[in-house]
Amino acid sequence: MEPDFSALTDSLGDEFDGYLIDAASDDSNQLYLSGFDAPDPFVTLYKPEGTYLLVSTLEFGRAKKESRADAVSRLSEYDYREKYVEHGPVVGKAKAIAEFLADHDVGSLAVPGDFPLGTADALRDEGIVVEAQTENVIGNIRAVKTAEELEHIRDAQNANEASMQAAEDLLRAADVEDGVLYYEGEPLTSERVKEEIEVTLLRHGCALDETIVACGADAADPHNRGSGPLEAGEAIIIDIFPRDKETKYNGDMTRTFVKGEPSDKIREWFELTERALQAAFDATKAGATGADVHDAVCDVYEAAGENTLRADPNAETGFIHSTGHGVGLDVHESPSLSQSGEELEPGHVITIEPGLYDPEIGGVRIEDMVVVTEDGFENFNDYPVQLVVE
Amino acid sequence: MEPDFSALTDSLGDEFDGYLIDAASDDSNQLYLSGFDAPDPFVTLYKPEGTYLLVSTLEFGRAKKESRADAVSRLSEYDYREKYVEHGPVVGKAKAIAEFLADHDVGSLAVPGDFPLGTADALRDEGIVVEAQTENVIGNIRAVKTAEELEHIRDAQNANEASMQAAEDLLRAADVEDGVLYYEGEPLTSERVKEEIEVTLLRHGCALDETIVACGADAADPHNRGSGPLEAGEAIIIDIFPRDKETKYNGDMTRTFVKGEPSDKIREWFELTERALQAAFDATKAGATGADVHDAVCDVYEAAGENTLRADPNAETGFIHSTGHGVGLDVHESPSLSQSGEELEPGHVITIEPGLYDPEIGGVRIEDMVVVTEDGFENFNDYPVQLVVE
Repeated sequence: MEPDFSALTDSLGDEFDGYLIDAASDDSNQLYLSGFDAPDPFVTLYKPEGTYLLVSTLEFGRAKKESRADAVSRLSEYDYREKYVEHGPVVGKAKAIAEFLADHDVGSLAVPGDFPLGTADALRDEGIVVEAQTENVIGNIRAVKTAEELEHIRDAQNANEASMQAAEDLLRAADVEDGVLYYEGEPLTSERVKEEIEVTLLRHGCALDETIVACGADAADPHNRGSGPLEAGEAIIIDIFPRDKETKYNGDMTRTFVKGEPSDKIREWFELTERALQAAFDATKAGATGADVHDAVCDVYEAAGENTLRADPNAETGFIHSTGHGVGLDVHESPSLSQSGEELEPGHVITIEPGLYDPEIGGVRIEDMVVVTEDGFENFNDYPVQLVVE
Repeated sequence: MEPDFSALTDSLGDEFDGYLIDAASDDSNQLYLSGFDAPDPFVTLYKPEGTYLLVSTLEFGRAKKESRADAVSRLSEYDYREKYVEHGPVVGKAKAIAEFLADHDVGSLAVPGDFPLGTADALRDEGIVVEAQTENVIGNIRAVKTAEELEHIRDAQNANEASMQAAEDLLRAADVEDGVLYYEGEPLTSERVKEEIEVTLLRHGCALDETIVACGADAADPHNRGSGPLEAGEAIIIDIFPRDKETKYNGDMTRTFVKGEPSDKIREWFELTERALQAAFDATKAGATGADVHDAVCDVYEAAGENTLRADPNAETGFIHSTGHGVGLDVHESPSLSQSGEELEPGHVITIEPGLYDPEIGGVRIEDMVVVTEDGFENFNDYPVQLVVE
């Protein structure tokens, strides 16, 4: 299914002849616009009438076969080697790009905000108008998923639930000695649980750079990945965000578990977070804004006397992150469910992930991933929300 | 061990007050300069007298603890939220950065070539001089490894050899029926071998996005990752480039295997590639250039009548890539072993990976990773170079 790039055409207006990305496909805008997956930077030129690639000789054959471009050119056609030797890599490449642009009658370019400054200034020196867009136009196009993309995301989240189950099963199988979890005679560590998650995901065709299995004070820092032996009675946050290796689409979910008896405070926080999750669900539908959903969560927390970033931008405990984010080719993409969250549209895939944090108590977070519909949402998760693992 | 940033200081000269990176730590220059691993973009300011971070509230605590910065500031100290609402994300952030720079008496900045254009132009609008460096100064600093980095790389390559062994063992254990490899009653596919490699690497604390297990015509495209059943008598290229999840340093190695009887041509290509590898080894030492090593390989291939990119920049068969590249925090980094390869220095970690490709024949590649020394090199690999798997 071909994406709809009309918003990109509109963004060019009369001012710009085309739109240019100079990046490897680890830049998801590049992957989406070019339809080409390559490890080294290449150039994609979008014009309303077509999409054109400029790649190294090494990628030429594959780019012709696999990309969605109407035509593919090679750097060597523009004497890149000679230009590189004479002018160095940055200016040499820009001079080759300038000739490629001339071949396509392009004298003015809109580019993404993260377009490389070196290339931009060198293109300007070649007389080309280059202006960074302040809106992430392709990001906004990407935010609305096609039916095919939704299937990819559903597959990734199904793999994710299988790995969450594997992790929970490990916690369940563990014994407790002196307040520490043991499995097969050894202390059960964050690292061991992560390994189980990652192996399960690999068997489902997913990869991931990182997983969070954070216990106690570690879990109070939302970006701490966790390490060392897991402790009974402490909240263990497990946050998994795998990427399907073939489709490149991501999943994202979080559960919080306690092996043994949680403190009253953790129990209270968990129930409060379940209520915050429900409040977010109630607010989620097309036409509402990401800010509305975030406000619904902050309202629940603040009414219960908990601190939030909304109430105090310097808060280091309480609800100290946004309510969620878009998920697709990137695990963090548009839209945002935060104080500046934009209007939700049907087809937006978002996480909803309220949580509370304090190094003295630990951390609690519950995260589902949903797709926004006209009157509400559909939840990709049906994994139970249950604190205590017997 | 603190890296030596004196070359970065020198690159600023009298012209620039500081050097700025605005990127997440998946940008290895950012990770190296800041010593801070974070998934979302943050700002690192380098001045000869110190290094200063500007991060979100969410990352503040961890940045203070984990980064190598002399001081850490929060975006909220510069009213980022208000600026975001009034000016949008790009200009809003740039205005906050401009105030942060003023606090550090910085009015002129050198930045990396891939610095985001949107931020650069917005900083210029705030009256700050911003110029992209055409040399990758931090990349050149990173290219020379410290003893500690060499240990990290050695560990990654040891894990890599273990996973290569697991892959070769699978090929060895396979049966051949009707020219196709079978394992445990099912066709042995590229995907199955990759899974074995990846699970082995996970057990060694390494992750990877991709592995190449490419057979027959697939192997003739150096960037094809391979798919489907493996065939007897065909060359199977296995190229593995894992990253240690804790240290973030990479390994990289390649072997080519044939299960069953190779064609005379594949045998000839394999022996020729072994000779090319040896010629590259003979040329590798401090003071030689990456171009010298690349020339040594091209000489061997061209003398045997094979095509190379050196002889024909548009070649699509023969030796159609460079001889190697630096490895460290990135799996592709400085220096380059190519026609424009710079001088090799002690402590450079490089791959040496000659290969030959033709869709009619298949592909052959052998790759070791070495560290350059005063009089030669030390090889991180001691994995056998052996074509036929019985």
